[in-house]
Amino acid sequence: MPQNASVKKPQQASLDALYHLVRDDLKRVDTLILERVKSEITLIHDIARHIIASGGKRIRPALTLISAQLCGYNGDRHIALAASVEFIHTATLLHDDVVDESKLRRGLATANELFGNKASVLVGDFLFSQAFQLMVGDNNMRTLRILSDASAIIAKGEVMQLMTEGAPETSIESYLQVISSKTAALFAAACELGGVIAENDEWADALREFGIYIGIAFQLVDDALDYSADQETLGKTVGDDFNEGKITLPVIYCYGAGTRDEKAFWDRTLGNLQQKPEDLHTAIMIMQKYDAIGKTIGMAERYCEKARKTLDVFEACPEKRAMLDIVDFCASRVY
Amino acid sequence: MPQNASVKKPQQASLDALYHLVRDDLKRVDTLILERVKSEITLIHDIARHIIASGGKRIRPALTLISAQLCGYNGDRHIALAASVEFIHTATLLHDDVVDESKLRRGLATANELFGNKASVLVGDFLFSQAFQLMVGDNNMRTLRILSDASAIIAKGEVMQLMTEGAPETSIESYLQVISSKTAALFAAACELGGVIAENDEWADALREFGIYIGIAFQLVDDALDYSADQETLGKTVGDDFNEGKITLPVIYCYGAGTRDEKAFWDRTLGNLQQKPEDLHTAIMIMQKYDAIGKTIGMAERYCEKARKTLDVFEACPEKRAMLDIVDFCASRVY
Repeated sequence: MPQNASVKKPQQASLDALYHLVRDDLKRVDTLILERVKSEITLIHDIARHIIASGGKRIRPALTLISAQLCGYNGDRHIALAASVEFIHTATLLHDDVVDESKLRRGLATANELFGNKASVLVGDFLFSQAFQLMVGDNNMRTLRILSDASAIIAKGEVMQLMTEGAPETSIESYLQVISSKTAALFAAACELGGVIAENDEWADALREFGIYIGIAFQLVDDALDYSADQETLGKTVGDDFNEGKITLPVIYCYGAGTRDEKAFWDRTLGNLQQKPEDLHTAIMIMQKYDAIGKTIGMAERYCEKARKTLDVFEACPEKRAMLDIVDFCASRVY
Repeated sequence: MPQNASVKKPQQASLDALYHLVRDDLKRVDTLILERVKSEITLIHDIARHIIASGGKRIRPALTLISAQLCGYNGDRHIALAASVEFIHTATLLHDDVVDESKLRRGLATANELFGNKASVLVGDFLFSQAFQLMVGDNNMRTLRILSDASAIIAKGEVMQLMTEGAPETSIESYLQVISSKTAALFAAACELGGVIAENDEWADALREFGIYIGIAFQLVDDALDYSADQETLGKTVGDDFNEGKITLPVIYCYGAGTRDEKAFWDRTLGNLQQKPEDLHTAIMIMQKYDAIGKTIGMAERYCEKARKTLDVFEACPEKRAMLDIVDFCASRVY
């Protein structure tokens, strides 16, 4: 055995292929985004740079770019559309932070802690307006409709989520409707755009479906990680959702199967937000009892499987392989 | 002298002619607005109805309607566009309330006091998304561009205003830039749309100018009223701007001309928001000393005069008369 051969780890799913394929396009998207937030108004400049430049995986614009490539699209429209998608996402993040007072996002202080609620609301509005100007700039009614519809669905989803806060008796169905709206709608639009600008309706439909399923799976895993992740890996505080009284699938499973005492626990901690320091630990114990994280991941895996199937209409190619990797990555990032 | 003849009051400028001319169209706009906020999501329904049904003068959509009529427009597009304009306005109000914690708007509790900040941010986003869907529904790139540009300018203006808060040394120029953006841009778009859908570029340009000038005048008078109005008439709390540390033209005049003690007063009350109960009275006294309200109204009147001139391109007709009435009303509502 040659010296430099090491025992190979089992292949870990990654987004490397995706980012390799869209690298140049993603750089153009980043340049465009930074250009649009370059502002003589320092507050816009500072907050926008904070939230945009602080990294993030750019997964949504990358989906637009890889979808366009998968469909053999050759033009330039995908750049501005992908930037528009990212602007909608960052604006939503800013408004979410105002709302949720989450302490940590991507391992950095949230914008509203640094700049105040006021600024986060208004700069969020500015980012939304940039998203709309970019989509108007594409000069095409169909892409406009896709993105403005997505914005409307996201807004509805955010309000629906707010209404389920503190209500652990929320049904699985309502929960799925919330995450389909607040998360999956933008994934769906991001992917569909690639097929639309390539002018292939069948592919656009398939990509839209892909986006919905991967978006739901992504959110399910996110909600599971909130009770199970290693904080350093995830870059977010375990227990954020718990602290905010957010009702996610692991909670819904536990509440439905729970004893009277356990139901009272969820009602106190999430319904009335009366939390003691040891409550998060208790919550995680109850989740282990009912395998609530496992069941949530199980549901995510079923959506991942649906996502894979939607790609059947495409011939094997590096782009398709990269998109299947996204699905694998999504399903595996919990482990 | 016959018994039923009473001594006539001097003719008071009113919006009666305007509302008479657009009455039927405005009803259609209201119907469309209520249709769009009819939602299975009770929170959206409640907040949207609260802020929309609570009245308001509908001055912005009325401007779109009267402008379209003035240009002899015969179709239906003005209805949805006027509704879109009102949605942008109400969304901005909701986000403004989150931001400013004003206690009273239109004589009613603000939405964020009734429903919480969270809900106001997210329902505001929903209303913005409805505005965009309505403008996309008009299916025309030019109207889309006008309205999405206006939204972007408003968002910038709101952030700029936030940055001047607590800074009484703000220049008149910066202040004018803020109100041109946060207020006049939507008035301008509202009016321009009438000319655009009537497909008359010269008229559209004139109406845009009209909107800018009347919008600036409107905001100047509003800012003056905040230190001078009879609360019952105005339906807003005198001193709102003062309490929030908002820097408006009356303050800028006083600060520029003020003694060292007066500057220290503004720095303490508006710069650091350290206010005692008697401070509002002192502020009003200082304003009287420098005729700051009179000067602000004087500037409003100069913009009113500019607004009147822009209508020279139109022949005399009831619509033109009604628009001149708006100008007179704007200039006179302070008395």
